[in-house]
Amino acid sequence: MKKEKVVLAYSGGLDTSVILKWLENTYQYEVIAVCVDVGQEDDFAAVKQKALSTGAIKAYILDVKEEFVTDYIYPTLKAGAVYEDDYLLGTSFARPLIAKKLVEIAEKEGAIAIAHGATGKGNDQVRFEASIKALNPYIKIIAPWRVWDLKSREDCVDYALKNNIPIPVTKKDIYSRDSNIWHISHEGGNLENPWNEHDENIYKMSVAPEKAPDTPAYVEVQFSHGIPVAIDGFQYSPVELVEKLNKIGGAHGIGIIDIVENRLVGMKSRGVYETPGGTILYEAHKSLEKLTLDRATMNFKKNIAEKYAQLVYDGLWFTPLKEALDQFVDSTQQYVTGIVKLKLYKGTCTAVASASPYSLYNEEFVTFGEDDVYNQKDAEGFINLFALPLTIRSLMKYDKDQQKKINKNKQVI
Amino acid sequence: MKKEKVVLAYSGGLDTSVILKWLENTYQYEVIAVCVDVGQEDDFAAVKQKALSTGAIKAYILDVKEEFVTDYIYPTLKAGAVYEDDYLLGTSFARPLIAKKLVEIAEKEGAIAIAHGATGKGNDQVRFEASIKALNPYIKIIAPWRVWDLKSREDCVDYALKNNIPIPVTKKDIYSRDSNIWHISHEGGNLENPWNEHDENIYKMSVAPEKAPDTPAYVEVQFSHGIPVAIDGFQYSPVELVEKLNKIGGAHGIGIIDIVENRLVGMKSRGVYETPGGTILYEAHKSLEKLTLDRATMNFKKNIAEKYAQLVYDGLWFTPLKEALDQFVDSTQQYVTGIVKLKLYKGTCTAVASASPYSLYNEEFVTFGEDDVYNQKDAEGFINLFALPLTIRSLMKYDKDQQKKINKNKQVI
Amino acid sequence: MKKEKVVLAYSGGLDTSVILKWLENTYQYEVIAVCVDVGQEDDFAAVKQKALSTGAIKAYILDVKEEFVTDYIYPTLKAGAVYEDDYLLGTSFARPLIAKKLVEIAEKEGAIAIAHGATGKGNDQVRFEASIKALNPYIKIIAPWRVWDLKSREDCVDYALKNNIPIPVTKKDIYSRDSNIWHISHEGGNLENPWNEHDENIYKMSVAPEKAPDTPAYVEVQFSHGIPVAIDGFQYSPVELVEKLNKIGGAHGIGIIDIVENRLVGMKSRGVYETPGGTILYEAHKSLEKLTLDRATMNFKKNIAEKYAQLVYDGLWFTPLKEALDQFVDSTQQYVTGIVKLKLYKGTCTAVASASPYSLYNEEFVTFGEDDVYNQKDAEGFINLFALPLTIRSLMKYDKDQQKKINKNKQVI
Amino acid sequence: MKKEKVVLAYSGGLDTSVILKWLENTYQYEVIAVCVDVGQEDDFAAVKQKALSTGAIKAYILDVKEEFVTDYIYPTLKAGAVYEDDYLLGTSFARPLIAKKLVEIAEKEGAIAIAHGATGKGNDQVRFEASIKALNPYIKIIAPWRVWDLKSREDCVDYALKNNIPIPVTKKDIYSRDSNIWHISHEGGNLENPWNEHDENIYKMSVAPEKAPDTPAYVEVQFSHGIPVAIDGFQYSPVELVEKLNKIGGAHGIGIIDIVENRLVGMKSRGVYETPGGTILYEAHKSLEKLTLDRATMNFKKNIAEKYAQLVYDGLWFTPLKEALDQFVDSTQQYVTGIVKLKLYKGTCTAVASASPYSLYNEEFVTFGEDDVYNQKDAEGFINLFALPLTIRSLMKYDKDQQKKINKNKQVI
Repeated sequence: MKKEKVVLAYSGGLDTSVILKWLENTYQYEVIAVCVDVGQEDDFAAVKQKALSTGAIKAYILDVKEEFVTDYIYPTLKAGAVYEDDYLLGTSFARPLIAKKLVEIAEKEGAIAIAHGATGKGNDQVRFEASIKALNPYIKIIAPWRVWDLKSREDCVDYALKNNIPIPVTKKDIYSRDSNIWHISHEGGNLENPWNEHDENIYKMSVAPEKAPDTPAYVEVQFSHGIPVAIDGFQYSPVELVEKLNKIGGAHGIGIIDIVENRLVGMKSRGVYETPGGTILYEAHKSLEKLTLDRATMNFKKNIAEKYAQLVYDGLWFTPLKEALDQFVDSTQQYVTGIVKLKLYKGTCTAVASASPYSLYNEEFVTFGEDDVYNQKDAEGFINLFALPLTIRSLMKYDKDQQKKINKNKQVI
Repeated sequence: MKKEKVVLAYSGGLDTSVILKWLENTYQYEVIAVCVDVGQEDDFAAVKQKALSTGAIKAYILDVKEEFVTDYIYPTLKAGAVYEDDYLLGTSFARPLIAKKLVEIAEKEGAIAIAHGATGKGNDQVRFEASIKALNPYIKIIAPWRVWDLKSREDCVDYALKNNIPIPVTKKDIYSRDSNIWHISHEGGNLENPWNEHDENIYKMSVAPEKAPDTPAYVEVQFSHGIPVAIDGFQYSPVELVEKLNKIGGAHGIGIIDIVENRLVGMKSRGVYETPGGTILYEAHKSLEKLTLDRATMNFKKNIAEKYAQLVYDGLWFTPLKEALDQFVDSTQQYVTGIVKLKLYKGTCTAVASASPYSLYNEEFVTFGEDDVYNQKDAEGFINLFALPLTIRSLMKYDKDQQKKINKNKQVI
Repeated sequence: MKKEKVVLAYSGGLDTSVILKWLENTYQYEVIAVCVDVGQEDDFAAVKQKALSTGAIKAYILDVKEEFVTDYIYPTLKAGAVYEDDYLLGTSFARPLIAKKLVEIAEKEGAIAIAHGATGKGNDQVRFEASIKALNPYIKIIAPWRVWDLKSREDCVDYALKNNIPIPVTKKDIYSRDSNIWHISHEGGNLENPWNEHDENIYKMSVAPEKAPDTPAYVEVQFSHGIPVAIDGFQYSPVELVEKLNKIGGAHGIGIIDIVENRLVGMKSRGVYETPGGTILYEAHKSLEKLTLDRATMNFKKNIAEKYAQLVYDGLWFTPLKEALDQFVDSTQQYVTGIVKLKLYKGTCTAVASASPYSLYNEEFVTFGEDDVYNQKDAEGFINLFALPLTIRSLMKYDKDQQKKINKNKQVI
Repeated sequence: MKKEKVVLAYSGGLDTSVILKWLENTYQYEVIAVCVDVGQEDDFAAVKQKALSTGAIKAYILDVKEEFVTDYIYPTLKAGAVYEDDYLLGTSFARPLIAKKLVEIAEKEGAIAIAHGATGKGNDQVRFEASIKALNPYIKIIAPWRVWDLKSREDCVDYALKNNIPIPVTKKDIYSRDSNIWHISHEGGNLENPWNEHDENIYKMSVAPEKAPDTPAYVEVQFSHGIPVAIDGFQYSPVELVEKLNKIGGAHGIGIIDIVENRLVGMKSRGVYETPGGTILYEAHKSLEKLTLDRATMNFKKNIAEKYAQLVYDGLWFTPLKEALDQFVDSTQQYVTGIVKLKLYKGTCTAVASASPYSLYNEEFVTFGEDDVYNQKDAEGFINLFALPLTIRSLMKYDKDQQKKINKNKQVI
């Protein structure tokens, strides 16, 4: 009888190697290993080799960096979506893209299931599985960490030894990390007590602000319809642009946050995130919107951004609500075109200047002094009507206070 | 015939001195000058003297700093209200308090009108007048800048010379500023072109980040029910606490922002704001809320904060909606008690550690490994139901795609 | 060894009788049956007797109708909370109250667990269990329908026969219903196909509109601070008032809805609800708010009402967010005092007149013709500033269209 | 010297006839009268003739009914926008369309100004003028009611007599009305006291519910992507479809509301509106969305609907925010295709059945009993994680209550 196939989200690390073997042992599946390159640093040839030597019948390495930046990062940037005021969603929006690739391979290969290495306590299991269900409701999902008897790294090592799986010689990192072209996250270790200040040796993409240059750097980011297209006058492809800004931002200690966050699965966790280039892009984009969006649009777009962030964080990328929010956002970006100059200095990234051919900032209106465009007398009428509800209420209270009001129609209370 | 009285919001500067005289000349009013001390730096004895020598029949100097911090700043801090993502509302919430004092004096003195020196292009006229109307709808309001023929500083100087009003010998500041215990704002001058980087000589409460110490400072702020009560273990009165943090923050270049903002009266303007102590307090408060508020409350409170900020910015302090928002906010602050440790370094203010007796961060739940409190198997059921709408929609689309669905009830489209 | 105790939410029906016995058989628990009277029609003495004869060691009948109306129904009414535009939350807010009573009895009796008869597909299991967890996280929860092997009514009948549990002689209702003083719900049967029009024989609290009197009835409801206190000039206790309006409303076919709704657990269901008195109260309350709340408060309160409805529907009654929303709502009800006259006619309930000593409707302002209070010329200034963002944007676009704009600062795109 | 031209929004009534002449007399303008047919009942040939005989140099009659339904009514219907819970925006969205036509004629004719007959107390002046400013910021706007000395109908009659303007022989209606294909509004008269029940003789499009047939009528409305396309199986053009439903709805007394509303200009007013066909369409559309939209989309779309209604009511039709909301809405309507059956009976319009090829209602999931698609055991995990924040908070409070918690890191309050 022909064996059934499973697609495994494979990283080459101990956990997913053990899972690979465990899927074979437990379900007699043929395993197709898929490693999705979203910009994490890795030796992908070695990862592929390891998958095959651990027993995979096939191994894919998929470079999706451009799709990641263009279709996942930039829409979120345009939305201005930030989770709980701080988190730029680096891990969150990588998951649906990885899930999409897993589903594509599963459909192509005729696999009946997809397996992943996310644990039962985190957000990623939800992001993977919600995305898979949205894309193909007939594929079975296997989350070994919720199923098997292995409870710790030690159990995994034992399993690996018994099954001839090579164990990495490097000492296990005390932190749990996730990285891609947009960011790296750090959890665990001494971060688990929120009263501990994090250790700056933790950083991977950035220097500590104290170790950044003593002289500020300036960078000009140019946007077209909300999308960054050039740095300091030079055009870059999406992937290059983000990498370029990561280098500049990382060198100045930009974009490090340390937060307690609310996971979707109900508990709080604490993490440190580095997002150097992303932080520059968000700051620049926000500054350009202040110049080119009107008040009402800016204000309402914040609701959209909040919901967008929540959907992305919660793994609800492939949903009709997310699609509708994208349509809203794109409509607002029609004139978000221009240049923002930013100053980077020891951990701070500040927009110091901005210009746009579609600027709604109009010096004529704002300047003190005589002008044709604005009649100061208009303000009196404006205030009188704008504040009329306050006046009417105030009159009502005055009348009540002075016992003057007689309800002519009806004896009420 | 007895003259009618007007209460004038008086600062001692050229503008309000000219207004004082103009009110006498134009309306034959007796002018009562009121200078409200919200923490701006000034020689209030001299201000009082100048008012009287310019013709006021009476001059009040009112120190309202404690009321300002306790009843205006702290409620806004608890709400987490920030206008357009950046502005901590320093000028905005001072205006209703000043208006309240003007109304109190007007009622006490039997004045029929209140005059103020805000121009016809700004937000402050709205904030003053909406507050006055809300507090006493029968008081007449006079806004000379919208009424008289004087169009510029030069016109004012001429008027002063003609009316023997002493003219300040200091050269006119090129910036228009407003300051109080919470902040100082800067507008005008070369800021009027958003492509100009602002000059760091502008700062009054802070040093430029580049000139801040090379060594970070740490400060621990303690909160009780959302209200800051102690710094580094020492209790301070509200006014002392803000002043103390201004000193610490200012020395490290904390809290400088440079933004294009949307005024209520319809145009964009550009301003630089310094809010050193306030920035520390907002950062600390936000961090403590992350530890002590649940996800749903945190998330919804952001809507409240947005609306709160808009009301405060727009001068709608004395409104029933603002009161209702305060009730919401106070309810959420029940457990916002604890300590936040902040690191101040060259313009950055970062919460690096936090602790609370009411912390909802629970290490037991978040730790990787075996545990009693959390059954990882629960996650499967959670995901299945959480993502059920996606699954159902996905099934519907699959069915449609494969032409399998027959509507049994009705031939539709 | 002493047996452990379980508290069972007991109705006297077949299901909970089987559960009672099953708890004894399966866990060797001593069962304390608790029947909470929230206004459903029942012979409570018989229910108590049946519990004891089926094996309960103790049986409580708790009349909580007044607490239900005062602490659950009225706060929700004041909030104006309606789920998905139509559903007045009749079942939803009864569940937390029942859960609270179960917890109280469990704590008093030293029971270690609470059992309920809600199925694994509905909202009620969530409402019961979330409430219990919020009130006492140490009590174990047993939901037999999710645990045992019985899959249908037939299985229950078999189990009852084997265990000498009396089986109701009445034929099983084809609909699944839940009723209390506020409403009755109907699900199942032919309602499960949304293309079927529901059968009007379904109604329990109301007549079909077609069978209602041909002459309209009028009723005047008086509110004090958002709470209904009198009908047609006569004061009633909360329970009497709701019962009285149920009678009046039911006679005129008021408050029947038939909807497809989104359950919390991810699927849609279809239900018919009768809420005769409640519908009158919502209509009256809304009408009075239109008279007494200002625009900004009314508008923002709708957000609050939406969230309130969602929390109540989802069983999140005992949460800090719900408490904070209540504080908001109560603050808005300060002046929601007055009388609303309603016309009831063949299924329609319309507010036809309203009056309040705190009305913000001011005929002086609205009347066409000359007046002192409102200067029509103010409108010009108001419009000019209100529409200034539109004007500025329009100018920008005109300039762009005509290629006239030259960016003086910077060559941008 | 050549005279300048003004475009006048002309109705043929006394007011705009007087305005026509007044514009000539006061400004020596040449007047181009424009009467926009949005579906109001009128003898447009006579209107044109009257304009010319009163002195217009040109008169346009523009039938824009189809554009009105397609581009103004249907987008608002799809949005589900309702102002203050009740008002279907009939007058509101006609104004921007009329303004657009006025601007088009003004540009074509080289007119320098547009004049309208809206008073200084209402919303319509804002809607006209904001729309004109958004479309062409260089056109001057003249609102005679805010400018001239005429204060009442009597003044107008006098002016007409002096200027040989024919005065309508019909007695002046005691109500102020506005009508178009979507609705008719009634204000003034005895409505100005909210305690007065309105007189049913007021109705123009409908019979009073009491006078409607004793037998219910059924109507099936078919939608495609949120747009109504057919009634009872027959396709209609947009204009025909609305007219057809007006006839059916009007005959059954559907869609009459009587409300106190908050005007944009700060005061409350009271009005009666008839919207027979529109009410049927809103009810049908809502019902179909309940079948075809998922919970999250439905829920968030309500925020969009609220904002949409506010923008439309406030005359902010031609704004970027409105455009962005339209994009959101259109995205949600992808699957809002199907049929809704409605029952009309003596003032009530109830959706009694619905069907869609894209229905998300799935009987398999909702049915009680054994099933493959839904595992009831999932619910336990769902509830445990859904309610985890409640559990954690509850644990925290328990611990605090029992004085058991010792903060190990720091002595806090």
